[in-house]
Amino acid sequence: MSIAGMITDMAKEGKLASRELRNLDRAKKDAALHLMAERLLEREEDILRENAKDLSQAKASGLSEAMIDRLTLNKKVLQEMSQGLQEVKALPDPVGEITGMWKRPNGLLVGRVRIPLGLIGFIYESRPNVTIDAAGLCFKSGNAVILKGGSEAIHSNMVLAGLLEEALREAGLPPKAVQLVPTTDREAVGILLGLEDYLDIIIPRGGEGLIRFVTSHSRVPVLKHFKGVCHVYVDEFADLGMAEDVCFNAKVQRPGVCNAMETMLVHEKIAPRFIPAMCDRFTHAGVEIRGCPRTLEFLPEAKPATKEDWPAEFLELILAVKVVSSMEEALDHIEEYGSKHTETIITNDYARAQRFLSQVDSSVVLVNASTRFNDGNQLGLGAEIGINTSKLHAFGPMGLTELTATKFIVYGHGQIRS
Amino acid sequence: MSIAGMITDMAKEGKLASRELRNLDRAKKDAALHLMAERLLEREEDILRENAKDLSQAKASGLSEAMIDRLTLNKKVLQEMSQGLQEVKALPDPVGEITGMWKRPNGLLVGRVRIPLGLIGFIYESRPNVTIDAAGLCFKSGNAVILKGGSEAIHSNMVLAGLLEEALREAGLPPKAVQLVPTTDREAVGILLGLEDYLDIIIPRGGEGLIRFVTSHSRVPVLKHFKGVCHVYVDEFADLGMAEDVCFNAKVQRPGVCNAMETMLVHEKIAPRFIPAMCDRFTHAGVEIRGCPRTLEFLPEAKPATKEDWPAEFLELILAVKVVSSMEEALDHIEEYGSKHTETIITNDYARAQRFLSQVDSSVVLVNASTRFNDGNQLGLGAEIGINTSKLHAFGPMGLTELTATKFIVYGHGQIRS
Repeated sequence: MSIAGMITDMAKEGKLASRELRNLDRAKKDAALHLMAERLLEREEDILRENAKDLSQAKASGLSEAMIDRLTLNKKVLQEMSQGLQEVKALPDPVGEITGMWKRPNGLLVGRVRIPLGLIGFIYESRPNVTIDAAGLCFKSGNAVILKGGSEAIHSNMVLAGLLEEALREAGLPPKAVQLVPTTDREAVGILLGLEDYLDIIIPRGGEGLIRFVTSHSRVPVLKHFKGVCHVYVDEFADLGMAEDVCFNAKVQRPGVCNAMETMLVHEKIAPRFIPAMCDRFTHAGVEIRGCPRTLEFLPEAKPATKEDWPAEFLELILAVKVVSSMEEALDHIEEYGSKHTETIITNDYARAQRFLSQVDSSVVLVNASTRFNDGNQLGLGAEIGINTSKLHAFGPMGLTELTATKFIVYGHGQIRS
Repeated sequence: MSIAGMITDMAKEGKLASRELRNLDRAKKDAALHLMAERLLEREEDILRENAKDLSQAKASGLSEAMIDRLTLNKKVLQEMSQGLQEVKALPDPVGEITGMWKRPNGLLVGRVRIPLGLIGFIYESRPNVTIDAAGLCFKSGNAVILKGGSEAIHSNMVLAGLLEEALREAGLPPKAVQLVPTTDREAVGILLGLEDYLDIIIPRGGEGLIRFVTSHSRVPVLKHFKGVCHVYVDEFADLGMAEDVCFNAKVQRPGVCNAMETMLVHEKIAPRFIPAMCDRFTHAGVEIRGCPRTLEFLPEAKPATKEDWPAEFLELILAVKVVSSMEEALDHIEEYGSKHTETIITNDYARAQRFLSQVDSSVVLVNASTRFNDGNQLGLGAEIGINTSKLHAFGPMGLTELTATKFIVYGHGQIRS
């Protein structure tokens, strides 16, 4: 069979499965999640054997250390994956929630109820643990999912998808609720993106190249996250000790993730006191500073920032630093170069804090806290499937609730329109 | 200047205007809406003169009577348009609503607040009153909008857009908050669809051809409504008098709209009593019946339904009728041929009513009420900008709230991640 035929068949079967999932009781879903979590631990040997195939292929083809690290499964990682499924099991089921109900003048009782999205296409790169995370979240929220992982992880993903299917079967649920595209052929992605009659939504997770490809080719609606160019603005009225701790955390704690700070904006009034001490701490932690001309007055040895640095998502220990004359200038800078992801103000001024919160058009806007808190778990949504930087559907981190929609239900007694 | 250059400039200016609209107080928006409503009445003469140009061109090019009717403005239509703006003015402002707020274990106070989407591209056909409706809704919800109307209405739309701009200026607000693409060139649509860096969302409103074109070419997320193939299922336990009234209303009251019934499903147990009387009433109202073989047993003179009739959106006085052996068969039929728009069950059986509400995957699902109630106004959302039949963002009718997103705001006191 052609790849197109195979993937279309998967989509048809996924759609059928999604119909069964639509009204599944929480207890049944949780029982299946529990089985999945158990199978992950029981099948350790098989999983590590398949993962070893991916690893030796990765080494042979010269993948970077970082990539190989992301690809590697071991007992500890499997335990975390299993624990992740148990945590999703423990989260409330969003499906069936009535988000509002009201009576119309003609007696119609109108309500809005949460329903699953239907069939999700999830396209991702590298890490095989994402296979489990995504499957768990989609399933718990009542969605069927077709997973298309990276080719480097194909053996790992196949064995993982196999045990998920087994657990579904054992739980008496449609095994096609979670399917993995069993090929490394790149054509597969393009085919998925064209199946608008079966797929309700596509969620890509990976580098900017993958995301751009998906967005420009998909006929199915896409929830996506381009990049995180996150800013901390250290205001004139900041507590400088707090500013130092927050900025350090935002840049250094985990520089390779989307909610790490990439540009620090510093008000000119406190720049002479703040920048030297702060950047000394950064330099000791191995952070390369790229400064605007005014920053370089305090740090003559730092590298000058180029115009490419302001919109850059470095994802490593590099930080762009700019001195601004006013909060307005900081807001303008964020408006021009930001990615609508995460921005923080450090200030003790009430009015400025409120103004920053209302004027910054990002998915998460914080006062006096690290950008690293833009995360479903940290914000209290539970596990997340990704962060959406388009405003459509769910702006910001997406947990279980964000994998649902609402429909209207109407209780009448014969009403007609006149 | 090229069309591409012109439209890109409009998008840049619209984006700038959207930043000013983001935090506008309700009082200011309402004052501008009031001015717009007044200008519409004051400028009647200019508007009708420009509308006459469109009408004479339409007649010369042989447009259908129905199209010319939709294109025609007069005193009464202008009064309704003005009244529509006053009604939008009276609706609550969704922007700034805190939809939830909670405290995290580390003391972070996390909230979700409603914000405008940003810059909306609205692409529509024919009716010039839509220019005013769409502008009013987008503006009240804090969004800037670029309107691209049908070429038949270009003179009418230009004069309407002109007075909206005037009203904005007079209210001291950015005049580029509402812009109309001042050309009939079809290339303009394609250009708009590619401006993903400026536009936050595209809403097309028109025939299926336009919608398909927009969906398959847009790099900007699209909220769309393909078609309404709405069903009424008359259950074995229906009150047949109520069933007759609801079905008649759903089909005949306004057959040319998306929430009119297109297929009637009838349980076999009541078919012998229900179908002859019901279809007699339909036939007297000029409705053409296209029946399944079992329907034809009761209506030997009716036309047989072909397989094209089941997924058809007739939008006229034609009705497909099918006898089903069970509610399951009705649900399967809706699943296969429905458009996720609107479905109704007529029944007095409690369990069946509840099962229909939970199992039908449509934007509005009703018990014992006409499909014609799928409408923002009728359901209590206020005026609507359209009905979304994809589950993303807002499934069903979209009012002011559905033209917003939410962002997270976080109040901290120095929290960092460990």
